[in-house]
Amino acid sequence: MSKEITSRSEDYAQWYNDLVLKGGLADYSPVKGCMVIKPYGFALWEGMRDVLDKMFKDTGHQNAYFPLLIPKSFLSKEASHVEGFAKECAVVTHYRLKNDPNGKGVIVDPEAKLEEELIIRPTSETIIWNTYKDWIQSYRDLPLLINQWANVMRWEMRTRLFLRTAEFLWQEGHTAHATAQEAVEETTRMLEVYADFAENFMALPVVRGVKSPSERFAGAVDTYCIEALMQDGKALQAGTSHFLGQNFAKAFDVQFSNKENKLDYVWATSWGVSTRLIGALVMAHSDDSGLVLPPRIAPLQVVIVPIYKNDEQKAKIDERVAAIVKELKSNGISVKYDDSDNARPGWKFAEYELKGVPVRIAIGARDLENNVAEVARRDTKEKMSLSLDGITARIKDLLEEIQQNIYNKAKAYRDEHITPANTFEEFERLLDEKGGFISAHWDGTAETEEQIKERTKATIRCIPLNNPQEAGVCILTGKPSTQRVLFARAY
Amino acid sequence: MSKEITSRSEDYAQWYNDLVLKGGLADYSPVKGCMVIKPYGFALWEGMRDVLDKMFKDTGHQNAYFPLLIPKSFLSKEASHVEGFAKECAVVTHYRLKNDPNGKGVIVDPEAKLEEELIIRPTSETIIWNTYKDWIQSYRDLPLLINQWANVMRWEMRTRLFLRTAEFLWQEGHTAHATAQEAVEETTRMLEVYADFAENFMALPVVRGVKSPSERFAGAVDTYCIEALMQDGKALQAGTSHFLGQNFAKAFDVQFSNKENKLDYVWATSWGVSTRLIGALVMAHSDDSGLVLPPRIAPLQVVIVPIYKNDEQKAKIDERVAAIVKELKSNGISVKYDDSDNARPGWKFAEYELKGVPVRIAIGARDLENNVAEVARRDTKEKMSLSLDGITARIKDLLEEIQQNIYNKAKAYRDEHITPANTFEEFERLLDEKGGFISAHWDGTAETEEQIKERTKATIRCIPLNNPQEAGVCILTGKPSTQRVLFARAY
Ligand SMILES: [Zn+2]
Ligand SMILES: [Zn+2]
Repeated sequence: MSKEITSRSEDYAQWYNDLVLKGGLADYSPVKGCMVIKPYGFALWEGMRDVLDKMFKDTGHQNAYFPLLIPKSFLSKEASHVEGFAKECAVVTHYRLKNDPNGKGVIVDPEAKLEEELIIRPTSETIIWNTYKDWIQSYRDLPLLINQWANVMRWEMRTRLFLRTAEFLWQEGHTAHATAQEAVEETTRMLEVYADFAENFMALPVVRGVKSPSERFAGAVDTYCIEALMQDGKALQAGTSHFLGQNFAKAFDVQFSNKENKLDYVWATSWGVSTRLIGALVMAHSDDSGLVLPPRIAPLQVVIVPIYKNDEQKAKIDERVAAIVKELKSNGISVKYDDSDNARPGWKFAEYELKGVPVRIAIGARDLENNVAEVARRDTKEKMSLSLDGITARIKDLLEEIQQNIYNKAKAYRDEHITPANTFEEFERLLDEKGGFISAHWDGTAETEEQIKERTKATIRCIPLNNPQEAGVCILTGKPSTQRVLFARAY
Repeated sequence: MSKEITSRSEDYAQWYNDLVLKGGLADYSPVKGCMVIKPYGFALWEGMRDVLDKMFKDTGHQNAYFPLLIPKSFLSKEASHVEGFAKECAVVTHYRLKNDPNGKGVIVDPEAKLEEELIIRPTSETIIWNTYKDWIQSYRDLPLLINQWANVMRWEMRTRLFLRTAEFLWQEGHTAHATAQEAVEETTRMLEVYADFAENFMALPVVRGVKSPSERFAGAVDTYCIEALMQDGKALQAGTSHFLGQNFAKAFDVQFSNKENKLDYVWATSWGVSTRLIGALVMAHSDDSGLVLPPRIAPLQVVIVPIYKNDEQKAKIDERVAAIVKELKSNGISVKYDDSDNARPGWKFAEYELKGVPVRIAIGARDLENNVAEVARRDTKEKMSLSLDGITARIKDLLEEIQQNIYNKAKAYRDEHITPANTFEEFERLLDEKGGFISAHWDGTAETEEQIKERTKATIRCIPLNNPQEAGVCILTGKPSTQRVLFARAY
């Protein structure tokens, strides 16, 4: 193979990095914790963004854009928000450089110090609610359903490509409502949009749930989430949707006159997913040969490689392939004919396997005589000989089959890895030996949650929606409990 | 009318601000020089972005994403680049806040000072060429054709919504080539893409040209540009495409082995357009009633307003309109049926006029009986009664006619406002009394250019491509000149 990939069993973390770097998704940058998203990785993000953006618009949202920089004082206006976000962030203190009088470089001009420091947005609730104050006067201005695609920055100490980077790309929805009920409905509607996207496009089964109070977004009344499981048994939070109550409306004094002409504070939600989803996608489906991408979001769905010994053979293959490419494209299938002569077919096969292209078609001179092609699916690595007659319909079906198979495989793995534990010993043993989600009783206190985390590194991922009620005792304290919650070690 | 718009003759600058603010395009923000792009303005940008993005991809480019923050030392690596961009920029010096021990807010943690300051990108040549060093080894890695959609920041002292803001959105293409010729071809190819977009989508006639040396991009060998004319006679640079020579390759030591296996520095281009284009669009076409948007990029092309006295009439109109809306949409026309009952038709008419919706259809009970509708076009304010039979085809034609008419009107104005001047007195008088582009001889020196600018505030906008050669004398110095160049006062 052209590029060596560490196997999962050898070193899972290195396997992940190999896929991201050698698969052409991202690269390190000279700025600590920030990455470069390479063209193939960015095409993946564009595909995901386009699907999500349509879902947001179909549910009545509009896009807008708010400033990158937030006055420092804004962060302090919502008491718990400042605790969560004001700490590790990039601070702009000056607005000018000047030539270094002692050297040939440039230095910060001490005379260009800002009166108030500006923070690069770690999230935009504060600047947006400060703006909503001007936009909302009456119930007629509500609901206000706005989304923003943007870069944000959180100064992380230990970073990993896509999973945890200082700068990342995301979308953040920020909505304003006249009643608590409407806002809660919006929160769960968007959670469902995320779950739909994860399951039906990313082929990623998710648990829909609500966070325990200590895992809530800073400033939220309730944080809903979707939680996915990676192949190493660790969980990954794939999206969150927050019911913010009237917290931000009160912090920024956003009141509206309701239908009875009385003033009331506005109810809020916010919700987001980020380029972290690319990390989840890589870790959930890929194998030791490279990426495995679900056809519905793969930047390239089909690659065709010619196999020939001379120009005459090549010309015949070119002609037949041109017709196939045209037909595939007219059926909405993205396809590339890689007839470059600077690499042998075997090298190309390995390269497209590494890049996770769902279907590979190889056509040789003999194949052409027999009116067939060799078709290989990336997910199972199965190869089959298909007649060139009607191949477009077969490929179309095959792409759907691959999409479904990737989902089913991930779901079978996830379902096998939700395990009940009834004692703390069992809990610890399952975490170490099996991994995955552990379903266990918890006494509902933050102290117990914290102790479990310290002893096992497992956190409460969520309390699943529609969770069955069941009397039991907390695995740590033995105190009574009414339901099991899902614990896991997580990214 | 619902919202007062200052007329152009009264106060052109205020007219512009009124349109941007009251037309729902943008809003001021609490951060100096930064604006909020409101949903209607952002929809306009999305439409423009989608068209441009397809043009970039059709010419072989891929999108990627590079870090927001650039190490300070990078800016100094290219000598003239640092002069142009290192001065007025946002500087990140710290990465943490902490609770103020003397108060209830947060302060910058002095212990969290960065070893090297980071600059919010004013443009990305430096960080990108630092990365290209890792990506380019051989001629086989070339050309590298990458574009980035991003936010950038330049600390501007005097800002204006869209036209000049500290933070703005743009795209920046950064390409790498094996030969100077290829890079020059890329530079002019992208200039032509911009001109095509401006003329055929924005309905904005532009002059294609090259900048004089003192107006070049900092670090460029040649800067090509498209220049448009606004209704007040001032020019506006609508896009630039730079041939960077080997300047950045040398600054970041990016060499490749060519086909003869010899090392050579890579040739570069960069090119960009920004949200400034929205300002150009507003100022080029709009009138005293509000925005006038070309149909091909208008977020909403057609609005339908019902006129009725009772529910029975309304029900009949609803039914007929539903069929029209369906047919328009299936023809790719964006349409909104505004049957909200919180505003009278007259108020709605004024509102959609303000927002520049190209076609307005009003349907009353009597119209329905006569099988007609009143159709008003935004550009000429002409009204006509159209039969409901075949109205979709008529509307489709009308949208094209409006697109063409807006372009023709702007082109006639622009063509009338390219005026030759043969003496400095004539030059000054034309600038003051007529405005527009003045075509005049210049001796080719930066000194003369600077003197003309100081005395008249006019700059050389460009030396047009394929400029006719003509012997003459410089309007200021009387020295010999071989061609006329275009001067104007500009945004
Ligand atoms: Zn297992
Ligand atoms: Zn005039």
